[in-house]
Amino acid sequence: MAKPDVFEEHCWKDVIPPEDLETYSPYARETYIGENPAMLCIDLYNLVYKGGSGKPHDLDSQYPNSCGIYAHNALEPTKRLFAATRAAAVPIYYVTAQFNPHRVQSTRRSRIKMTAHDCDIHDEFAPEPEDVVFRKERPSAFFGTPLIAHLNQRRIDSLIVCGESTSGCVRASVLEAHMYGLHVTVVEECVFDRAEIIHKVSLFDMHHKYADVMKLDEVEVHLKGINPQKTKVA
Amino acid sequence: MAKPDVFEEHCWKDVIPPEDLETYSPYARETYIGENPAMLCIDLYNLVYKGGSGKPHDLDSQYPNSCGIYAHNALEPTKRLFAATRAAAVPIYYVTAQFNPHRVQSTRRSRIKMTAHDCDIHDEFAPEPEDVVFRKERPSAFFGTPLIAHLNQRRIDSLIVCGESTSGCVRASVLEAHMYGLHVTVVEECVFDRAEIIHKVSLFDMHHKYADVMKLDEVEVHLKGINPQKTKVA
Amino acid sequence: MAKPDVFEEHCWKDVIPPEDLETYSPYARETYIGENPAMLCIDLYNLVYKGGSGKPHDLDSQYPNSCGIYAHNALEPTKRLFAATRAAAVPIYYVTAQFNPHRVQSTRRSRIKMTAHDCDIHDEFAPEPEDVVFRKERPSAFFGTPLIAHLNQRRIDSLIVCGESTSGCVRASVLEAHMYGLHVTVVEECVFDRAEIIHKVSLFDMHHKYADVMKLDEVEVHLKGINPQKTKVA
Amino acid sequence: MAKPDVFEEHCWKDVIPPEDLETYSPYARETYIGENPAMLCIDLYNLVYKGGSGKPHDLDSQYPNSCGIYAHNALEPTKRLFAATRAAAVPIYYVTAQFNPHRVQSTRRSRIKMTAHDCDIHDEFAPEPEDVVFRKERPSAFFGTPLIAHLNQRRIDSLIVCGESTSGCVRASVLEAHMYGLHVTVVEECVFDRAEIIHKVSLFDMHHKYADVMKLDEVEVHLKGINPQKTKVA
Repeated sequence: MAKPDVFEEHCWKDVIPPEDLETYSPYARETYIGENPAMLCIDLYNLVYKGGSGKPHDLDSQYPNSCGIYAHNALEPTKRLFAATRAAAVPIYYVTAQFNPHRVQSTRRSRIKMTAHDCDIHDEFAPEPEDVVFRKERPSAFFGTPLIAHLNQRRIDSLIVCGESTSGCVRASVLEAHMYGLHVTVVEECVFDRAEIIHKVSLFDMHHKYADVMKLDEVEVHLKGINPQKTKVA
Repeated sequence: MAKPDVFEEHCWKDVIPPEDLETYSPYARETYIGENPAMLCIDLYNLVYKGGSGKPHDLDSQYPNSCGIYAHNALEPTKRLFAATRAAAVPIYYVTAQFNPHRVQSTRRSRIKMTAHDCDIHDEFAPEPEDVVFRKERPSAFFGTPLIAHLNQRRIDSLIVCGESTSGCVRASVLEAHMYGLHVTVVEECVFDRAEIIHKVSLFDMHHKYADVMKLDEVEVHLKGINPQKTKVA
Repeated sequence: MAKPDVFEEHCWKDVIPPEDLETYSPYARETYIGENPAMLCIDLYNLVYKGGSGKPHDLDSQYPNSCGIYAHNALEPTKRLFAATRAAAVPIYYVTAQFNPHRVQSTRRSRIKMTAHDCDIHDEFAPEPEDVVFRKERPSAFFGTPLIAHLNQRRIDSLIVCGESTSGCVRASVLEAHMYGLHVTVVEECVFDRAEIIHKVSLFDMHHKYADVMKLDEVEVHLKGINPQKTKVA
Repeated sequence: MAKPDVFEEHCWKDVIPPEDLETYSPYARETYIGENPAMLCIDLYNLVYKGGSGKPHDLDSQYPNSCGIYAHNALEPTKRLFAATRAAAVPIYYVTAQFNPHRVQSTRRSRIKMTAHDCDIHDEFAPEPEDVVFRKERPSAFFGTPLIAHLNQRRIDSLIVCGESTSGCVRASVLEAHMYGLHVTVVEECVFDRAEIIHKVSLFDMHHKYADVMKLDEVEVHLKGINPQKTKVA
């Protein structure tokens, strides 16, 4: 619901040069959340919070794949987003990493040792009984899971996305949601990565290609306007 | 076939900060081309060359979506890549935009007028009778096309990717190829975009997540080593 | 909208033994058409009508893959179905065979010679400008086409299916529609095959697994109740 | 490896009329197993064996969805198939039902109560540590699982299929394998259903459309000819 004139008022303004912003100016439009949304929470698992709120390059040797400070900065906004989503009775879907000796490799990184606990959802965002949790082996939340069938059976037409990493599983899931014909909103403060430059450029790319990147404040206002009694749950 | 110690010797070195390169250093590995590769040529259509070799932000008002200088800089390397690929009898698959009044919108940009000619492959890269051309409506070459069936029927295990845009259809196709279990090589000089920063960051992301970004010289050497008599064509 | 007590009142009653009908009796339920349906017309192409209304085993040597009498028997019912669908302004999607020297083989039959005309939609069912037509290489209307994206973008929640063959492309498409989470109605008189036994058993299977097989009369009544002004077309 | 002249020497001969066999005679061809196969074991879970070897219509009220006699008849052949497959070091993939309160409905049957044990693999076919097991919510083994990625990463080009039900999850999986471009062999004695007519007609359909239905004896001979030392396991 942000107007076209604030279309570029986002965290990427300090990394995208003015000439490139000009090239992309015809993409400016009003952003919005769809009529019958669900929330998709991507890879909010323990591993990415490990080692506390340091910089990932300091943490990586001891806590590989931790998002450190970026994960911890997103904790409070994501708690606010969960509260607003639950209050609106918007259905919540989680994806997290499959923990399995035979899973296919999800990135090109040399394999890191993970425990079952590493792959579990962080306690702050523990699923409720009515939530649906999928385990995945590939970056996209749609690939190798029945997510699209669940969304269609409930006639979900749009997603509100949070989680990590912005350039990896979030972007892959946003791309596939867009390809399947869903409207996608990415909540800026509630997605994170291991490096600022790739976080910001990925948000810029998604905003101009596949999704509406929106501020948490806007999303909260929208969710407060939803009457839970009227929410369609098939 | 580049060694791990030159893993970061690519165009993105001037945009990725040293600390982030450190975070990603455990991804260093030897790069390679698969055993039974095909070439995938993404959106080498007329539209992106229009207006000549200016900067996209200067061209966009008159030639929307042109990649200008970046498209034209890739012409010679891509011609070299095609020559080497044809000499090695490696099969070639193209995807280009569907030209159709009913196609679904592929990005969030306000729709631009396109002609049938805009969507045709550039003359320099005109398909030969033995090549396969798919029309697509969505960013990934796999979504809404039977590409994966063609690759599996010919027992292709890997792709050599060229075309545009790096951050859009190339990245989406590379992601899906990776998710399907194929090894992917992206030829650095033969992919292009409308802005340097997103081109470089997308290459960095793909190299660390889904693909081996390789130099044209290396790819040419590899292709020259393939004996066309032994190439399996089912 | 047929009641559970007539759940088995269909053409398969003479081929499914009573004991098996008993085994499947817990599947009895009320059948219906979804809230925001589209029609999916599968492979109504010239090839299957060739040679007139003979029996397929008499026609096959001269007109390979013709459905003969079964195709011609379905002509009038299918014209009625199209009339009712157009009157209700329900969107119409067609799939037909890709005509292309490089297409992958769609069945295990030794390849038959087809002309471009063979693959075109029969004149009686010629698409209107507002209809969407996809070319496919594989049995399912969803595999290798962007159909699911089109349906989701228009918020279609259900399909009304006609065409051929019941045991081949119709069944494959119905299965995939069901897997994607859509409600599916198959119009009994408007689907056909090359052999009665496989036509009837496939309808039985779909009815108990993936779809509501309904009579044309019922479907017509339902379509007449749709107010075209209120039909959602995004 | 059966010759074309015995192409119809299968269990369906007593249900497919001679005229229809004539219609399908151009499909006759030599059957075979692919070069680098995997075995796919579909829904060999406890539920379908419950109640012993009675007729399904007698068992259904007490043991809903049991395949009774047909499941039990397949026990010995399937054990022989497993033994030959393991001896040849051919990789084994299982799919079984997801046990989860939130799973989407897989057929149109009124939901039946299932326990976690019902969805576990039968003890006779218990997976070994090197096997891969997927849980699925939809009929096809490919839909909502990363199976295709696993197969491609190991360069599997063909499947040997056993399990149930012939007309349901087996047929759906065989269809999707075929659409993805894999060669498929169905082992006649090692697939089963709840009704003979739909079992036989589904085998007939698959044999003429998507797969080579082969006898266990032939498959055993083939597997004995595979040198486990040379089996490619990536």
